[in-house]
Amino acid sequence: MPSDIDIAQAASLTPILQLAQDKLGIPPEALEPYGHYKAKIDLTWLDKQTAPQGKLILVTAISPTPAGEGKTTTSIGLADALNRIGKRTLVALREPSLGPVFGMKGGAAGGGYSQVVPMEDINLHFTGDFNAIALAHNLLAALIDNHIHHGNELGFDSRRIVWRRVMDMNDRALRSTVVSLGGPGNGFPREDGFDIVVASEVMAIFCLATSRKDLKQRLGNIIVGYTRAQTPIRARDLQAEGAMAVLLKDAIKPNLVQTLENTPAIIHGGPFANIAHGCNSVTATNAALKLGEYVVTEAGFGADLGAEKFIDIKCRKSGLRPDAVVVVATLRALKYHGGVQANDFNTPNLAALQQGVSNLERHVNNMRENFGLPCTVAINHRTTDTQEELDWLINHMGQLGVQVVVTRHWAEGSAGAVELANTVVKSIESKSADLQSGLKFLYQDSDTLWDKMHTIATRIYGAANISADAAVRAKIDKLQADGFGHYPVCVAKTQYSFSTDPKLIGAPSGHTINIREVRLAAGAEFVVMICGDIMTMPGLPKVPASTRIDIDDEGRVTGLF
Amino acid sequence: MPSDIDIAQAASLTPILQLAQDKLGIPPEALEPYGHYKAKIDLTWLDKQTAPQGKLILVTAISPTPAGEGKTTTSIGLADALNRIGKRTLVALREPSLGPVFGMKGGAAGGGYSQVVPMEDINLHFTGDFNAIALAHNLLAALIDNHIHHGNELGFDSRRIVWRRVMDMNDRALRSTVVSLGGPGNGFPREDGFDIVVASEVMAIFCLATSRKDLKQRLGNIIVGYTRAQTPIRARDLQAEGAMAVLLKDAIKPNLVQTLENTPAIIHGGPFANIAHGCNSVTATNAALKLGEYVVTEAGFGADLGAEKFIDIKCRKSGLRPDAVVVVATLRALKYHGGVQANDFNTPNLAALQQGVSNLERHVNNMRENFGLPCTVAINHRTTDTQEELDWLINHMGQLGVQVVVTRHWAEGSAGAVELANTVVKSIESKSADLQSGLKFLYQDSDTLWDKMHTIATRIYGAANISADAAVRAKIDKLQADGFGHYPVCVAKTQYSFSTDPKLIGAPSGHTINIREVRLAAGAEFVVMICGDIMTMPGLPKVPASTRIDIDDEGRVTGLF
Repeated sequence: MPSDIDIAQAASLTPILQLAQDKLGIPPEALEPYGHYKAKIDLTWLDKQTAPQGKLILVTAISPTPAGEGKTTTSIGLADALNRIGKRTLVALREPSLGPVFGMKGGAAGGGYSQVVPMEDINLHFTGDFNAIALAHNLLAALIDNHIHHGNELGFDSRRIVWRRVMDMNDRALRSTVVSLGGPGNGFPREDGFDIVVASEVMAIFCLATSRKDLKQRLGNIIVGYTRAQTPIRARDLQAEGAMAVLLKDAIKPNLVQTLENTPAIIHGGPFANIAHGCNSVTATNAALKLGEYVVTEAGFGADLGAEKFIDIKCRKSGLRPDAVVVVATLRALKYHGGVQANDFNTPNLAALQQGVSNLERHVNNMRENFGLPCTVAINHRTTDTQEELDWLINHMGQLGVQVVVTRHWAEGSAGAVELANTVVKSIESKSADLQSGLKFLYQDSDTLWDKMHTIATRIYGAANISADAAVRAKIDKLQADGFGHYPVCVAKTQYSFSTDPKLIGAPSGHTINIREVRLAAGAEFVVMICGDIMTMPGLPKVPASTRIDIDDEGRVTGLF
Repeated sequence: MPSDIDIAQAASLTPILQLAQDKLGIPPEALEPYGHYKAKIDLTWLDKQTAPQGKLILVTAISPTPAGEGKTTTSIGLADALNRIGKRTLVALREPSLGPVFGMKGGAAGGGYSQVVPMEDINLHFTGDFNAIALAHNLLAALIDNHIHHGNELGFDSRRIVWRRVMDMNDRALRSTVVSLGGPGNGFPREDGFDIVVASEVMAIFCLATSRKDLKQRLGNIIVGYTRAQTPIRARDLQAEGAMAVLLKDAIKPNLVQTLENTPAIIHGGPFANIAHGCNSVTATNAALKLGEYVVTEAGFGADLGAEKFIDIKCRKSGLRPDAVVVVATLRALKYHGGVQANDFNTPNLAALQQGVSNLERHVNNMRENFGLPCTVAINHRTTDTQEELDWLINHMGQLGVQVVVTRHWAEGSAGAVELANTVVKSIESKSADLQSGLKFLYQDSDTLWDKMHTIATRIYGAANISADAAVRAKIDKLQADGFGHYPVCVAKTQYSFSTDPKLIGAPSGHTINIREVRLAAGAEFVVMICGDIMTMPGLPKVPASTRIDIDDEGRVTGLF
């Protein structure tokens, strides 16, 4: 196989204005081109289109290995295959963060013959959305320290400022800093730090906002710090939300690009899947549903985190309702959940597969029973997979009433996902009786924050209980008392296990989920419950990917993958 | 007069692809549109065009008051007026920095009826160039700390890291920081700080590079720190330059927009005029000279800083040669140089004007005698100017052989600058005998760094001498011994005076210029001599402009000025 970037650079792209007109009926005046192959879609034009009509397919995954199991490539391959079988389909994805591109993970524009293009642009600055979000975030940070410097009329307690700074870079040196050193002209020294842009609450707000008005309202609601009396101080108190919204004026328009097979792709927003909800913007999903018969979208991490938040946070607030779910798995990851180590991933091992399938079963059951959604399993095929293993898995899940489809979109493009496309369409067109009632939420708005967390832990994670030390418990009770109890809960925990221990593989039961920390996102309108260690500013590895990335004298990029 | 943004939003813009085709003969395939009114020009297409043919007009100014005397509006008005009299003209300008937009100064896209549009976009993220520069800069910073964290094979002395971080924000809290706190996982704590993006050496390199190859070469040459033995460590040693150049791959293409009167404007790059050279990119100026008969460009601050660096740094390296100079002045500023305080600027005061004209005379003489360039004075008219004052000034400068033209482009657009256009064209077409030899540089490459600084100080600033304490003198000698003596000198000093004391108005003589600090820009290829206090990270005022900036539900921006 050629490298991802070689495949991408050899692609035959349709000029974006033509693709939009021909495939989606968007007139050129409703598009703002960014070069010849990227465009932003005008919000006013979108508002005038009819209500969302398309069917929404959510692609999620089992608890992944660190390499990931291929949600993005599967989403792209499935969308290409749906078009191939005659369904007008778009794919809606998250924008990649620049940090990982130069670090370990590489790009996030799919891979093999299931990519979105131009992949270099999508993986680098794209249309500038993340930069706009970073600047909106950092303007608010500058306004806080500036306010304190000029007299602190709002009475900030500088020990209780909860608004850090952000940068779209993996830079561990910025995790924990002291700022305002150097004398009276530079302000009052205090502890601070940077998160990566995808961890910014502005990113979460950006992705949940349903209009310019809602965006500005939410930005104003952000709580940036507290007084000594612990009264919250909001962005609105600094008159920050207008300028922040101005910085986001173009960013909030969804971005249109295409797959290698010229399927329209809307790529917009990309909040972290731990301290935020991990899926593309509501604006993008809504736009796609207005423009296509089918929309394929993805949620970050495994289904316990990504799909749960997709439904309980994104769908709850926006009115979006998925029609079907695809759970992506690899034999490699299933064997990992059966106890196999990384260096043995390529060795056939039916026993390990039989052991590890428990992880897949629980994710699938969660989708079907807890959320009431039809569910297909997509096995993202690898050359080392044996027919014996695949047959066992197909048969085993079939006995549970779940269809397993092996996909080869990475190597073959849409041709490798036609069976998946047909299966998913069928699952939507003939929902079984028990699923006719449609999407169910896991909890009600009126449940307490503690009960919401308890419900997620016991019903999704298989835990016996939740716990929190007295200080954390008190903070949760205070949030409840202060009127934030109706917010959904956004769990930040490891994606590698149903528990909070990344090494607890398979489908653990009876464990306790300990809440280590609680954070209020008053603009995004959720309460983050942090269970375990969460890193909001990654670092670079010893040999960063950046050392391999280069450009020649004519402007051709190499080394992106 | 309506506000700048009201005028800008009422403008009748030509779609950029059409403007490029009709006015400049650029085919659509050589343009990358960014929306309908901004585009980047393809470098490969530009390379294929004939050598630069246009006449280059440099707009500079007297020593300004803090409000500025209107170089940008004069550049735009003059370019509009040149087109009005039938000369195919472009204007080449710097990109505004975002920091001041939210601080005190406001936007930098001209004003009144001499603006470049779309002004909101130009003043905000524009085409993302500054973001790309910031990320390239900060990637290099992350690679330094990452290298030390993972074993420090290159042997960085963490006390001698000279590469700070950058952000496009006025944020005084970031001037002086400590990074890498929080334990072994976060690296080795050290002192650090942030500059505003325009102060980044990457910005200076970006503006001086003549090709992709030259850009990458210069990025690799950046010295980021030293070992304990004081051996320099370069970006190349961290294998950073390839990825940095990839981040800049689109940014280095010049941006095409237009004035309110549909004059093509190339706006590209914007280095600080203190620790860098303060003018738009070489790429942009070259592109404009290939596309027009006349090109109007500007240099930052007064002529002692901006024009001197334009010639001795930008022209020396690039081969660019201005054909004429316009020195912008206001009666207000001339009276200021005659001792009038800000609250009396609007009172007629011929005596103060007669006193303050010394500042203008010296700047004009510098342009004519030191650089051999024909020079016209443009008085940027204000309604409080009296005819008596104007007549005196025109007559007085006329006796010295210098033509003074009163311009009203701010209130009238091109109509208000036709006389200036005619005068400048005449000055180019009939250069007087003493100017026939063309541009002279102030010093030779082979002069020592000390002698270069001495020449600038005595011949441009009217100083008697230069000084430096022993440590600074030793550092200059070391740079000379280490092989950097052939670089030009980039002086960082106050723009308000020929001296290093901002309060020393008029045309002081016999003063001493003290060199407080010296910095090597091994990628930009100049040596910065800092004379006085230089701020590389501005702060916000008590009531920042951001508090007045807003956007309505339909996306219309207000409060930008």
